[in-house]
Amino acid sequence: MHLLSVDQFGKDDLEEYCARANYHRQSRQDTSASGKILANLFYEPSTRTSSSFYSAMVRLGGHVIPINEVDYSSVAKGETLEDTIRTMACYADVIVLRHGEVGAAARAALVSQVPIINGGDGVGEHPTQALLDLYTIRQELGTTDGLHVVMMGDLLHGRTVKSLAKLLRLYDVRISWVSPDQLRIPEEFVRHGETETDDLFEVIMEADVVYVTRVQKERMITSYDAREQLTMNYSVTATHMAVAKPDMVLMHPLPRVGEIPTSLDSDPRAAYFRQMSYGLFMRMAVLAKVLGPKTWG
Amino acid sequence: MHLLSVDQFGKDDLEEYCARANYHRQSRQDTSASGKILANLFYEPSTRTSSSFYSAMVRLGGHVIPINEVDYSSVAKGETLEDTIRTMACYADVIVLRHGEVGAAARAALVSQVPIINGGDGVGEHPTQALLDLYTIRQELGTTDGLHVVMMGDLLHGRTVKSLAKLLRLYDVRISWVSPDQLRIPEEFVRHGETETDDLFEVIMEADVVYVTRVQKERMITSYDAREQLTMNYSVTATHMAVAKPDMVLMHPLPRVGEIPTSLDSDPRAAYFRQMSYGLFMRMAVLAKVLGPKTWG
Amino acid sequence: MHLLSVDQFGKDDLEEYCARANYHRQSRQDTSASGKILANLFYEPSTRTSSSFYSAMVRLGGHVIPINEVDYSSVAKGETLEDTIRTMACYADVIVLRHGEVGAAARAALVSQVPIINGGDGVGEHPTQALLDLYTIRQELGTTDGLHVVMMGDLLHGRTVKSLAKLLRLYDVRISWVSPDQLRIPEEFVRHGETETDDLFEVIMEADVVYVTRVQKERMITSYDAREQLTMNYSVTATHMAVAKPDMVLMHPLPRVGEIPTSLDSDPRAAYFRQMSYGLFMRMAVLAKVLGPKTWG
Repeated sequence: MHLLSVDQFGKDDLEEYCARANYHRQSRQDTSASGKILANLFYEPSTRTSSSFYSAMVRLGGHVIPINEVDYSSVAKGETLEDTIRTMACYADVIVLRHGEVGAAARAALVSQVPIINGGDGVGEHPTQALLDLYTIRQELGTTDGLHVVMMGDLLHGRTVKSLAKLLRLYDVRISWVSPDQLRIPEEFVRHGETETDDLFEVIMEADVVYVTRVQKERMITSYDAREQLTMNYSVTATHMAVAKPDMVLMHPLPRVGEIPTSLDSDPRAAYFRQMSYGLFMRMAVLAKVLGPKTWG
Repeated sequence: MHLLSVDQFGKDDLEEYCARANYHRQSRQDTSASGKILANLFYEPSTRTSSSFYSAMVRLGGHVIPINEVDYSSVAKGETLEDTIRTMACYADVIVLRHGEVGAAARAALVSQVPIINGGDGVGEHPTQALLDLYTIRQELGTTDGLHVVMMGDLLHGRTVKSLAKLLRLYDVRISWVSPDQLRIPEEFVRHGETETDDLFEVIMEADVVYVTRVQKERMITSYDAREQLTMNYSVTATHMAVAKPDMVLMHPLPRVGEIPTSLDSDPRAAYFRQMSYGLFMRMAVLAKVLGPKTWG
Repeated sequence: MHLLSVDQFGKDDLEEYCARANYHRQSRQDTSASGKILANLFYEPSTRTSSSFYSAMVRLGGHVIPINEVDYSSVAKGETLEDTIRTMACYADVIVLRHGEVGAAARAALVSQVPIINGGDGVGEHPTQALLDLYTIRQELGTTDGLHVVMMGDLLHGRTVKSLAKLLRLYDVRISWVSPDQLRIPEEFVRHGETETDDLFEVIMEADVVYVTRVQKERMITSYDAREQLTMNYSVTATHMAVAKPDMVLMHPLPRVGEIPTSLDSDPRAAYFRQMSYGLFMRMAVLAKVLGPKTWG
């Protein structure tokens, strides 16, 4: 099986992935991938994602061929993605593909004899990020039902928030949306009665989760004062934390560049580094799942 | 022992390598390289070759230090190839060297305390490619004797066809040569009575193997019509396949850029992706052979 | 524990590291790092250092995530070193950090939940190089006491000679300093009565160790004659070797670019390639030490 899009997942799948991640969290070494090889095929750099899969594969007893930060010409001397995939499928048992073009993972899956895991295809999808985000919420709060989740930042371009929102829609979750007016979430993602605002204070008091992503202020506005105002509105401050619930969960896919000051890192509600750890266990779950029962070795 | 050139191989060697590759094809995991380390030292990028050796080493139970796409300055801060090799020979048990200069592998072998495998030295040699090509023919046709092999493309500059031709000369093989007039095979490679032509149709009907390599048309001619004509003559078409033998074997070292259209990929005679797989087993054979019996570990 | 600076080491520590390196020299495979993962986080290229740690970790039964030659933007898209470290500490059990800024390793250690090994921080420190240099002297001469060590080259900028000098000060060692006048060792490193000179001949006859580093002549002087003179004074020649002790040890951290001609490589006193090998064993010692007794796996 391939893992290409969050649209593949039903509620049962999510339960299975979370249960598997829990298993790997408890038992950090295992032999699900013994003798197997992962090709980490990254047309775009992403140290975080590639390292996470690398570590996950090794902890499952497998091996990794790292193909990092190659551009089109150097990896393939002009050959098509399809030919590169068919070649790598001769050498590896599973491929994590990071690529700049939407739909690249689906194209790869069409020709691959081994499972393709979408590690991010441009502004398209990054489904294992959504899985680990969901798993983080489950681990931190014990449930995904009855929650109020605040999504903040660039909601127009961010693939992360959209993918996570799709998964949360399988549960009883209310989402509030905080962004500059120009970067609002496309309306098909919003349910009747949900709040859209440009002010985190309006919704943070009742938030169970605040999921922060980056606003690229520089691209939007050039006046210094306006940027300062934006920073105040779309960064999380000590004042926000002071009015938030004592068991609120503050998340961020990282890297951050100012949206959450380091002074909040020691707040027990700051979950973004735990989120990285949960990511490792979820990627172990994903690799073990797509590799399936061992067929040889 | 080092593996530097196809000139090293006698018929007995080829038989041994093919038998070893067969063994690894059947038994895709083994411990010949257990505890051993391969340094994949690539001064030039070659994802295909480096990944193939990487996978082969891991399937033999070994480990790989990937040193990819380094240019001279970054790998060595001005040091000589010889010093770099002597250093890496302290850390690794075998070195695959890809380098832009003819003779680099031989220079490396002179100073190395561990086996050097030539992974391509400029327009010089790429002997493991020739081995895997020969092995592909053996696997597809069951023999290397009595065959008619057609070599097509840039026969003047291509190291691949020359190396394979040298190996085929150890057997009872007739070669036909198809190329633009400017890119003919140097005459020392041609035997009396062999056909040289610029038209694949002239020889394809009796071909047991058609080995296609790239013609860099852009470098040769600038007129559009002439390029079109060249494309017709030096690409394989459905019409060519229609007149070819039903058990002909169509090979290409890849990457391809138009010489063989993807519409032929599903033809059972299209062997170029199987060729990649055979390459893995042959590189396992090569690594196991040069590492020899385990001396420690 | 972290390994950040030679200032951490007392004499007992050095004895322990040398004993551990000896153990790994005898027993080149071991399971001290079984199931553990090293992140080789190199913001600057250093094939020698990264390969050495890679090989050491694998020979201890562990695994390596190679993150080579990344520049700031690509590794982190603008994130701080601290955030990158906290992320990698989720995926790896130990981090070797090579970074262009003095103090980077110390900053990393402040936030890391796993051991940080300083693999070179700009003009700051490279403590495992100093350990392997000391170990080389011990292996070659059997002792570190009563020795006369000559340090030659760019003594002003070189971190290698300063770090080694600090370690040698724990023993009964006399150091002589040979450099161009503009590149003299800062005076706090010199003890009363020690020789400072610009002429190797003045001290080589009584030297037990000659430790050579690179002088970047091009940066200093532009006249051809003056450069030639400098080359004569700060390179080791056959004449130098002829007047040196028969059991003198000639060292160089490599890469060399002319300071020691290849014609001296076969002299048994030329220890610089053995130095590379000792480096592997010392890095095995360092990794095994910082990983400590296995806590899981």
